[in-house]
Amino acid sequence: MMLSGKSTWLFPNKPKIISTGVIGGPFEADSNLSKDFDYFKDDLWMEQASFEKAQQLLLEDASKLAVKKAQINEKDINLFISGDLMNQITPTTFAAKMLQHPYLGIFSACATTTEGLALAALITNNHSGKYILTGAASHHAATERQYRYPTEYGGQKPPTSQWTVTGAGCAIVSTEGEGPVVTSATLGKVIDMEMTDPFHMGGAMAPAAVDTILTHFKDQNIDASYYDLIITGDLGKIGSSICFDLLKQRGLHLQRKQYEDCGAMIYKESQPVFSGGSGAACPAVVTYGYLVNEMKKQTYNKILIVATGALHSPLTVKQGDSIPCIAHAISLENEGDQE
Amino acid sequence: MMLSGKSTWLFPNKPKIISTGVIGGPFEADSNLSKDFDYFKDDLWMEQASFEKAQQLLLEDASKLAVKKAQINEKDINLFISGDLMNQITPTTFAAKMLQHPYLGIFSACATTTEGLALAALITNNHSGKYILTGAASHHAATERQYRYPTEYGGQKPPTSQWTVTGAGCAIVSTEGEGPVVTSATLGKVIDMEMTDPFHMGGAMAPAAVDTILTHFKDQNIDASYYDLIITGDLGKIGSSICFDLLKQRGLHLQRKQYEDCGAMIYKESQPVFSGGSGAACPAVVTYGYLVNEMKKQTYNKILIVATGALHSPLTVKQGDSIPCIAHAISLENEGDQE
Repeated sequence: MMLSGKSTWLFPNKPKIISTGVIGGPFEADSNLSKDFDYFKDDLWMEQASFEKAQQLLLEDASKLAVKKAQINEKDINLFISGDLMNQITPTTFAAKMLQHPYLGIFSACATTTEGLALAALITNNHSGKYILTGAASHHAATERQYRYPTEYGGQKPPTSQWTVTGAGCAIVSTEGEGPVVTSATLGKVIDMEMTDPFHMGGAMAPAAVDTILTHFKDQNIDASYYDLIITGDLGKIGSSICFDLLKQRGLHLQRKQYEDCGAMIYKESQPVFSGGSGAACPAVVTYGYLVNEMKKQTYNKILIVATGALHSPLTVKQGDSIPCIAHAISLENEGDQE
Repeated sequence: MMLSGKSTWLFPNKPKIISTGVIGGPFEADSNLSKDFDYFKDDLWMEQASFEKAQQLLLEDASKLAVKKAQINEKDINLFISGDLMNQITPTTFAAKMLQHPYLGIFSACATTTEGLALAALITNNHSGKYILTGAASHHAATERQYRYPTEYGGQKPPTSQWTVTGAGCAIVSTEGEGPVVTSATLGKVIDMEMTDPFHMGGAMAPAAVDTILTHFKDQNIDASYYDLIITGDLGKIGSSICFDLLKQRGLHLQRKQYEDCGAMIYKESQPVFSGGSGAACPAVVTYGYLVNEMKKQTYNKILIVATGALHSPLTVKQGDSIPCIAHAISLENEGDQE
């Protein structure tokens, strides 16, 4: 079986991230990771008629850029796998309409990046496609409209709230070419600690990240020293601190420098983002920008990326439901460093 | 490559539909296909606090039934793949929370059944899971609330409109066991003929079905006589008539008895469903109920199932966008009848 434990997929045929496209908005141009974006859009509208269409454009442009940087043709792409936070994932669908690749829509909120990367790796590992395009986008203002409307003038947010990243990160996965190797994927279960505060999603999602990380270590029968870095998706400063403590409580003793969070690291202290970044683009731009770059520099040779998603809707919150969460993990390893 | 053409996955390791669970609502108990459901819920509320929770219950119950009928344990399931029409696919997510299997959320509206079945077949073909659970549910009243609210008292619908099926159909896919073999999957592109009427989704989706069917025949290099039956998802009476004519125009001459549509066949003439059934459950209950049963009786030995999805949202309709559509095709063949 190309399976370890119950839910960790193995990819012995070495699918790799052979190319990426990473675009941000104006706010991201001032972030900690600004050097890891290919370029930035100058304003939130991006000459589009709506914020949703701006999000669509980000995804289209990041996709085309990944194809261009891979030095392949658009028609070489076998499949496009993507999704987003918006109702019926319409920005992604309209991008897929423009790109005209065969298309699989997925939904796991901010865990979209690792769900898509897991599927892309599986497909290429099974020789069911040569070049798979995957990625995710989000847009601060489109997300605010859907989840937080009406956004009142002067309305305050609690310190646990997070800032949706405006951007898109895309990758091309193939067994041919060079780049970080996708060695395994651990698919998470829905974990729901009965939290009900949509302004504290980092806290709601932390237990899902912990569950998937522990499952991954158990399935793979490895210890805490295996990875140079374990990085969660968008728990933010508060959520990632909870995650680190929970992992320790549950027996996984990481060194502090072994653990990061995309949402906690992306913005500067001086940016007014409360607990940090979030959104489907958050793990997408950090993974396909910063992490891929640092792996190429061999700052890190073995990384576990654990994107997390809060799977509630405005309707379920109004109906009094708790916030169900999920996390999917992907291990990336430089060739020569795989055991 | 386990690929034919650009986007038709091949499954030489013979993943099979080894078990199904099919549940309907009270309206479906009076349908043409009532004998192909395992059982029916007596009312739309199903003792739940909301229609969305009733939809969740349908999916949970159909999933558990498929596991029970396969004579395996819940813990034997490696992965649950599902999605639905609701914002952020929350009924599916809350079902996944109760089932506690590793979970991949997908979104392709009423094409969810074939997207899920394609992925389940790929995963088992790649030996990345022994038992994969997949399926889809929809609920008439939950869908009306989201897409057609306010549903006015006495408000009339045009004859092109369709009736969302209340029900759930689930299947367990495995390379071990007996049942119809999933031999290939053709993944569709987004096709958008710039139609803007959300009360004529059959017409909007028909060209997507046509595109995927023609791609499948080209990729597989087969002719119209290959399949005993080609069945589209939920085009309804009007949309399926358009599809049949378009296929003929484009050079695929099917005999009338070779072509059906889940939405056109599910309800009786006497039921007030306008152009027919729709919803994510429509192709799910017809595929995992009627079609699997008829294949077991060898009424059909080779079927191409082409579930179709209209990927718009209420927001994109209000913003004046057209209705982007998709279709994913799955070929099911009885063992001994594969060429």
